[in-house]
Amino acid sequence: MDKKKLDLFFNPGSVAIIGASENPDKVGHVIMQNYIDVGFSGMIYPINKNAKTVLGRKAYKNIKDVRSKVDLAVIAIPVEGVSRALDECGSSGVRCAIVVTSGFSEVGRDDLQDELTRISNKYSMPVLGPNCLGVMDMRSRVDTMFLPTFKLDKPKIGGVTFVSQSGAVGSTVLDMISHEGFGLAKFISYGNAAVIDEVDILEYLMHDDNTKVVLFYMEGVKRGREFIDTVKRFTQIKPIIIAKGGTTPDGSKAAHSHTASLAGSATAYEAVFRQFGLIHVNDIDDLLSYGKIFDTEGVANGKRVAIITNGGGTGVLATDALYLNGLELAEMSSDSKAKLEKVMPKIVNVRMPLDMAGDADDKRFAAAMDVVTNDKNVDMVMVIALFQTPGADSRVAATLIHYKSNSPKPIVVVSPGGNYAQVHNQMMEGSGLPVYESPSSAARALKALFDYSEYIRNTRDIYGKGIKKGK
Amino acid sequence: MDKKKLDLFFNPGSVAIIGASENPDKVGHVIMQNYIDVGFSGMIYPINKNAKTVLGRKAYKNIKDVRSKVDLAVIAIPVEGVSRALDECGSSGVRCAIVVTSGFSEVGRDDLQDELTRISNKYSMPVLGPNCLGVMDMRSRVDTMFLPTFKLDKPKIGGVTFVSQSGAVGSTVLDMISHEGFGLAKFISYGNAAVIDEVDILEYLMHDDNTKVVLFYMEGVKRGREFIDTVKRFTQIKPIIIAKGGTTPDGSKAAHSHTASLAGSATAYEAVFRQFGLIHVNDIDDLLSYGKIFDTEGVANGKRVAIITNGGGTGVLATDALYLNGLELAEMSSDSKAKLEKVMPKIVNVRMPLDMAGDADDKRFAAAMDVVTNDKNVDMVMVIALFQTPGADSRVAATLIHYKSNSPKPIVVVSPGGNYAQVHNQMMEGSGLPVYESPSSAARALKALFDYSEYIRNTRDIYGKGIKKGK
Repeated sequence: MDKKKLDLFFNPGSVAIIGASENPDKVGHVIMQNYIDVGFSGMIYPINKNAKTVLGRKAYKNIKDVRSKVDLAVIAIPVEGVSRALDECGSSGVRCAIVVTSGFSEVGRDDLQDELTRISNKYSMPVLGPNCLGVMDMRSRVDTMFLPTFKLDKPKIGGVTFVSQSGAVGSTVLDMISHEGFGLAKFISYGNAAVIDEVDILEYLMHDDNTKVVLFYMEGVKRGREFIDTVKRFTQIKPIIIAKGGTTPDGSKAAHSHTASLAGSATAYEAVFRQFGLIHVNDIDDLLSYGKIFDTEGVANGKRVAIITNGGGTGVLATDALYLNGLELAEMSSDSKAKLEKVMPKIVNVRMPLDMAGDADDKRFAAAMDVVTNDKNVDMVMVIALFQTPGADSRVAATLIHYKSNSPKPIVVVSPGGNYAQVHNQMMEGSGLPVYESPSSAARALKALFDYSEYIRNTRDIYGKGIKKGK
Repeated sequence: MDKKKLDLFFNPGSVAIIGASENPDKVGHVIMQNYIDVGFSGMIYPINKNAKTVLGRKAYKNIKDVRSKVDLAVIAIPVEGVSRALDECGSSGVRCAIVVTSGFSEVGRDDLQDELTRISNKYSMPVLGPNCLGVMDMRSRVDTMFLPTFKLDKPKIGGVTFVSQSGAVGSTVLDMISHEGFGLAKFISYGNAAVIDEVDILEYLMHDDNTKVVLFYMEGVKRGREFIDTVKRFTQIKPIIIAKGGTTPDGSKAAHSHTASLAGSATAYEAVFRQFGLIHVNDIDDLLSYGKIFDTEGVANGKRVAIITNGGGTGVLATDALYLNGLELAEMSSDSKAKLEKVMPKIVNVRMPLDMAGDADDKRFAAAMDVVTNDKNVDMVMVIALFQTPGADSRVAATLIHYKSNSPKPIVVVSPGGNYAQVHNQMMEGSGLPVYESPSSAARALKALFDYSEYIRNTRDIYGKGIKKGK
């Protein structure tokens, strides 16, 4: 696979939409409208055999009629016409194509899908799909998704790239990512993988500087050996968080019926995931929950976690959560304790978890953050900021953001609650502080970060040799 | 403990606020303002030795100066004055009291706390606290919480009662409950339990018709044997979902430092929880997640779960989640399959999980719900409604609400996503359909419901004899 050609999917100079239409119910209409809405800077060529114009642009009866160079064709026409259209793209010099249309091997029509593979090879034209949503690139503003914007919030620009075999999981997780407020680099829905598969995509993303962490939903792997080889090198450079559908016997049957994937034995996959540093989650909520800590936090040098809280009960639950997740409650140095004894009011018992009481304000949070981020006995920090308490307000959020920007240690915030808490959570998330709804979900994310950091420390001399370290 | 006196906390005819103040920074100010804001229908007597009026009401120098009957006194003055004020309440015939003030056994002042117990006994006057937030009753509109309303959303009226030993966990979970959109009956924060403890509260709630399910955060039990005896009878009538802080060695130490609770061995508690039908969760998010299914759903007759989805990948993850939680994917009857074959489009493979494809609209959802809610092979239903897909809109939500109202089978909805999804989630939650963010969280809640149903089936002849079944 030519890497440069894969790049074209995300940065095309021009795009043809085969099946573009004035009818808002048509997929081709929504895709074209999205290109216009996001302010795509390249040429857009609608292809429609019956229309003179589509959405105010000159329409072409056939891709062959477009005289200029077309980098990317998005094919969204009924299944019967797809292979012919794809062949016409190839013969017209289109450089790559996305087949959105479904009705191929996922419904037993392997013959139709094989035809797409054959055409792609014939013209050396990379093809994504069929049965997929295509791609989104937050920087180039390419967006081939056929979902209207009112149904789907679009994320802001960031370092997370999401790869999904399933279109539905793809759009849902994108919508969740926007709602959570963290930033996206790219989105790739690859569907049945007639040509471009998970290995090609990972090889490409490994060297994509905009991608800091990959979230991956998959049901099965086509090229097992190559997948392992790629993953082994990939995880030395950046993390992959993977949700694999079909890890149980019942789920495996369901996956086969869904994308015709041979989901494989759960045990075999689990072993591979662990051995090669893939971070495995069971569901989409953890995909997001882990995604945000890897997007914003660096390396965890150890598993000793300081807990700072303005609510005693939540501190107790957090301590339980660390223990249940195999992390350790940090023991502050005597120097740190002495410093805190000086600044904290008498009712505060200076020990871990540090319960600063319900009237803790930004100054008390600042004093505690100052001490724990500088304590050599502390590897990571979990701050529980309950915004329902009298002392917690926007200054507390600003204080936490300040210490986040000035400390290399991983810091997570636990802030559950309603509107007042949510406003502050968005403020903190927007400044790169990962926020969680419970001590347990924060502890799980910290554990994933620690495990990955350990993996890299233990394997870089084995798998990491000769790999140029990413940023 | 006299049951009728405990009822007075929630339905007082008159209330005195000792420490009521014009100064908005004072706890007594916020409590009094809350009474006024919620439109409390009884008399309110502010007690303040320096003021003539507080918030426009005539103030009294001392509780003794109030000539009329006072049902409830809320004491929110510095710790030094509390026992004297409580004694004056007793001698003036006040019928019950809440001590909001902290600074008692949680900071080692057992002597001060014992004094409160002694005064309570002397006058046979039930006392809640000290070191607590008091109570909230959604029907009588009593609200002794000293948190301003802009920081804390207030829940709507419903069947969930939340009992919390910790004030901070209490206010945070209340705020989360409002945000989730499910309804509250009562809230009780009991703090150090100088007089009224967890046993008294459960004995009272057992026969409170407005309470359908109890959520409980506790760190330790004072009267172990009585607690077990009460719980054994309680769980035969309605469920208790319990989050216990300090179940791990580290957490237990933290709990001791927080509420001076002897958290006890995790294994011992776990054994008691399991044996007597308590539903145990590790964190506050699961407290809510389980709370809403018990609030709205009835009994699970078995563990066979039908999955209906408009996204194939999510159906695969849901199938995995059932398996991982010890539930079973239902196998539809041949009759059901025949019915579905007739109404579903050809692309839909009629089997479980039922993937109705991304263009499924309300009619397709209705056809599927009609079949599975009437299939004898189905005990519970998990509907995955991805509102990002082209076919899903408000009619789909309305359809699910319709089938919920017309079927005795437990039904849960999985609907992850941003604004468009959230609007519909609120619509469904408001009509008593529990909505979850992921297949895993829905599966865990269904499992808890099934386990509790099984517990009742297996124990009602042992523990349930002679107990009048609650509604």
